[in-house]
Amino acid sequence: MALAHKGLDVEMVPTPFTGVAAIADGTSKTVPVLEDDGSLIRDSFAIALHLEARHPARPLLFLAGEGGVAAARFVERWAAPALHILISRMIIMRVHDALDPADQTYFRGSREKRFGMRLESFEEAPEALRDAFAAALEPARRTLHSHEWLGGESPLFADYILFGTLMWLDIFLGRLPLAPDDEVTRWFERCLDLHGGLARGAKRAAA
Amino acid sequence: MALAHKGLDVEMVPTPFTGVAAIADGTSKTVPVLEDDGSLIRDSFAIALHLEARHPARPLLFLAGEGGVAAARFVERWAAPALHILISRMIIMRVHDALDPADQTYFRGSREKRFGMRLESFEEAPEALRDAFAAALEPARRTLHSHEWLGGESPLFADYILFGTLMWLDIFLGRLPLAPDDEVTRWFERCLDLHGGLARGAKRAAA
Repeated sequence: MALAHKGLDVEMVPTPFTGVAAIADGTSKTVPVLEDDGSLIRDSFAIALHLEARHPARPLLFLAGEGGVAAARFVERWAAPALHILISRMIIMRVHDALDPADQTYFRGSREKRFGMRLESFEEAPEALRDAFAAALEPARRTLHSHEWLGGESPLFADYILFGTLMWLDIFLGRLPLAPDDEVTRWFERCLDLHGGLARGAKRAAA
Repeated sequence: MALAHKGLDVEMVPTPFTGVAAIADGTSKTVPVLEDDGSLIRDSFAIALHLEARHPARPLLFLAGEGGVAAARFVERWAAPALHILISRMIIMRVHDALDPADQTYFRGSREKRFGMRLESFEEAPEALRDAFAAALEPARRTLHSHEWLGGESPLFADYILFGTLMWLDIFLGRLPLAPDDEVTRWFERCLDLHGGLARGAKRAAA
């Protein structure tokens, strides 16, 4: 989304979990990694900062100045503890089941170590977590009540941070476990429409 | 803090809970209320927006454009559910005990109705809530790890939102229940120093 926001052409290279060590000279344990004119940049936030510095005349990803970066960082640091575990619990078996066998073994081992339990025990029915999930989104909901985007009158990287997080649900559940008239649901639909409906074209897991 | 940020002269009128109905022509159930050249503005966020619109040439409270307002709103909407109840539980008897008898009656009645229990049952020792409080502040802590202020290189209204919330603890406990080297503690000390140490002059409750 950040690359499309900047109007940049990009070659996407999907990578299995067990393939990450082979990219970026083995320097990154996670994706995404951006290769740009010989430079390798890891981490979504770092990539957005890189794009902003490299292409300042293209549509901005951050509000001007260091304050805009701080505002986006706040949203990122809010989303991680508030949402990531809830979302993981809703979809972890579906993620597992969508992987190739080698990736399944890696995924199960690393996640069961991290969570201290079997994936099957970690997973919860989305409906059981629905209220907690809706409550966790309250800061975004209240902001979107008075603004079309977290970025104000147009989307910024802060929007893409939350959108990217929620895309896990759209891809693996086929929907967000929120009411259709929830401000967050409506904003999510607007995000799906951005950049020619880019994210609508993302491959969904089989139902 | 917002008025001082703008360098505006102001007459402060402290008001007991039971006196709020008599100010602002009875139109506000809460303080603060700003009277500015005949206009009455209720609510801290609305006051900040008013000051920004009225005094655009003075130091800005928001990053430029609607996006700056959205970013501050996000911090406000995060702080309310994440922090207000925890802080209330730490200090509610101290707040009660600092009030005059008529205010005590009002305060106890309204809060016991809201919380569904006696104030004495609602209160918790600050130490018992210390870990939850520290965890709730994580988005701010992580932002302040890479920026001196939530506003970036200088304080903005987003800083004052969180600072004003935490001032309840400084006034009623005499300290924040955080480690001295916590990024939030250090930022709070910087806030206390702002505008000639304005907030250091706020009256503290008797120990």
